[in-house]
Amino acid sequence: MFNNSNHAYIKDGWFREINDKSFPGQAFTMAVDSILYQAQSEFQDILIFRNKVYGTVLVLDGIIQCTEFDEFAYQEMITHIAMFAHSNPKRVLIIGGGDGGVLREVAKHSCVKQITMVEIDASVIELSRKFLPTLSDGAFEDERLDLKLCDGFKFLQDIGDSGLQNRYDVIVTDSSDPEGPAEAFFQERYFQLLKNALNPNGVVIMQSSENIWLNLNYLRDLKNTAKKVFPNTEYCYTMVPTYTSGQLGLIVCSNNASLSLANPQRVISEQEQEQLKYYNPQIHSSAFVLPTWADMIINK
Amino acid sequence: MFNNSNHAYIKDGWFREINDKSFPGQAFTMAVDSILYQAQSEFQDILIFRNKVYGTVLVLDGIIQCTEFDEFAYQEMITHIAMFAHSNPKRVLIIGGGDGGVLREVAKHSCVKQITMVEIDASVIELSRKFLPTLSDGAFEDERLDLKLCDGFKFLQDIGDSGLQNRYDVIVTDSSDPEGPAEAFFQERYFQLLKNALNPNGVVIMQSSENIWLNLNYLRDLKNTAKKVFPNTEYCYTMVPTYTSGQLGLIVCSNNASLSLANPQRVISEQEQEQLKYYNPQIHSSAFVLPTWADMIINK
Repeated sequence: MFNNSNHAYIKDGWFREINDKSFPGQAFTMAVDSILYQAQSEFQDILIFRNKVYGTVLVLDGIIQCTEFDEFAYQEMITHIAMFAHSNPKRVLIIGGGDGGVLREVAKHSCVKQITMVEIDASVIELSRKFLPTLSDGAFEDERLDLKLCDGFKFLQDIGDSGLQNRYDVIVTDSSDPEGPAEAFFQERYFQLLKNALNPNGVVIMQSSENIWLNLNYLRDLKNTAKKVFPNTEYCYTMVPTYTSGQLGLIVCSNNASLSLANPQRVISEQEQEQLKYYNPQIHSSAFVLPTWADMIINK
Repeated sequence: MFNNSNHAYIKDGWFREINDKSFPGQAFTMAVDSILYQAQSEFQDILIFRNKVYGTVLVLDGIIQCTEFDEFAYQEMITHIAMFAHSNPKRVLIIGGGDGGVLREVAKHSCVKQITMVEIDASVIELSRKFLPTLSDGAFEDERLDLKLCDGFKFLQDIGDSGLQNRYDVIVTDSSDPEGPAEAFFQERYFQLLKNALNPNGVVIMQSSENIWLNLNYLRDLKNTAKKVFPNTEYCYTMVPTYTSGQLGLIVCSNNASLSLANPQRVISEQEQEQLKYYNPQIHSSAFVLPTWADMIINK
């Protein structure tokens, strides 16, 4: 189980993110100082290793999910763009996010009364708490947390069936990429379920699994799929050096067509800002500004 | 010379940007479909290969300089941020830029009357024109161009000695990284020479060779070095997927302390915008917005 040389993604001491379907012709590679964990869970292949610059690295099905060094760029942006695009979020739902990073960021908002987190793979939570404890940073102990170990898609379907619609102010979809257990999270039916689970002024944000350099037409299609369901849909992104192309797209949606998602809807307090390393109101708005060629395809 | 297997940076058909000094513990890799050229010039190791996604790739001393697919992100931003931060640039100096990309972008501005380009390595020009013709896109034939094959540092010194100070409205320093022939371009004496060559309202921009993830303290120091010479110095960046961390920092300076470098100083015409794939006025300003932790080190 703790084999140091036979892992398919590691060769000559380097982890290689080779994936000819998702990133043809290119691969980010990281030197492996030591392998901390390696196994096949019920749902996916899990690899955790140490790198001298990036610290502990979590890999699912061969794709880098987060590293200690740069994780805040992803966790803060996917969380706070949605949280500050809402004027007073009280009930928050996290789909996925087993590493605890989004949970940690949501928990920083004192206005939040209830956090529901739905993760399908208990071993990701367990291993992240053990090997990447700074990601959740104690947030799994937060009294506002209601943790559910089940499929996020099914959880949203059950909400619909039970008549508990319009519950959440913010929903963060922090899934892995569409290949694998998260496949259903990138289709129209999922956006419909999100809409049913959201309050009228609610905001939903999801990682797109792509960026403008890698798959611009896919992003256009994904945004158009979301638009069929939500009258207000925007594309923005965060910059993460260990993700392909150094950036990752996010899709943000609301039922409220007049809500300006690119602008924070409340003033960030000094105390809130002090807790954040990456997010600030200026970078919130900048994250929605695209290079011309990408803007013309995604936003026209 | 056209050896397909023995190049130090290529192994098992993959080019590996391994550089333990500049990017320890990580390496971007690209599949090599074919090697177009490989040799040691008088100044540096030159490698040109084909990749199925990025097209033709130019590598100097083991560092990716540009690829056909994403070069416009660098060429447009380093050029047009400086060009639009000036209200009416007529005389432009390019230091380096042998691939012709910055020249192509400068030549798009009809207000420009004279372009001086100083490149030390004639073979970079020659090989780029042969293997990467879309980079210069005919701009080497531009009648406004005065091309000088010499050392940029010495060229600026000679300007000082000859009494031809205050000549240029915009200077773009498009050098390779400090390791190698471009070493002198990252020191205080160089900024002093740039200042001497610049008009009072002139704008100078240079590639920093680093980004906020890779070497934040170096960027703070480089900006502070520039600040000793220029009262107005800012850091901004462009996003390029084949550069380490997916982004590259730029240092922008002016003698005019009241000039807002983060805002275009003239309206971009529809005709000008149509010629650009990446740059637009919104991304000009966004390029100066940093994540909080980097902002606090670079700008405080």
